[in-house]
Amino acid sequence: MDKDLRLIELFELYQGLLTDRQRELFSSYYLYDLSLSEISESDGTTRQSVYEAVKKVKNKLDFYEKLLKLSEKNRSVSAIAEELTASGNPLGEKLKEIIGR
Amino acid sequence: MDKDLRLIELFELYQGLLTDRQRELFSSYYLYDLSLSEISESDGTTRQSVYEAVKKVKNKLDFYEKLLKLSEKNRSVSAIAEELTASGNPLGEKLKEIIGR
Repeated sequence: MDKDLRLIELFELYQGLLTDRQRELFSSYYLYDLSLSEISESDGTTRQSVYEAVKKVKNKLDFYEKLLKLSEKNRSVSAIAEELTASGNPLGEKLKEIIGR
Repeated sequence: MDKDLRLIELFELYQGLLTDRQRELFSSYYLYDLSLSEISESDGTTRQSVYEAVKKVKNKLDFYEKLLKLSEKNRSVSAIAEELTASGNPLGEKLKEIIGR
């Protein structure tokens, strides 16, 4: 799996546990695809400090996944949802809605 | 819903985010049903400090649920699992296993 996609998935699951600043940084870099330099310019800080901060967010997301395994569980639930949908069971779609897939 | 049962459910979901000490305290009080005095005696601390610490764990669990809503989501997935099981679909049991119910 693409590493950025994996991170974005973790972000969607755990963003509630990040600070506003961390959410902003992550979004700028991974969702809006700004470069580290662009972010540091608009923030009035250095490229290096943005780099460190983004790395910290990545580590935090990995840390939460290690502890709570939400992504792993969601993946298993998602597989069941697919199976249900494939067999024409409408509960498959309902399940996907709940886990946000 | 019984308040303690609700807390125990939150504990099962979020214990990975607690410290060892917080996990121990919660287990002693809610799972092994020790009194605050009993815990404070075996800890060599005061009843009041145990009380404060347990309260802090409760607040932490509520805080995580507010941010991540895992319990709420699990409840919805569980309802679907029940529906599947009632209709004789074996995926219901598989689903319950994943969410640990």
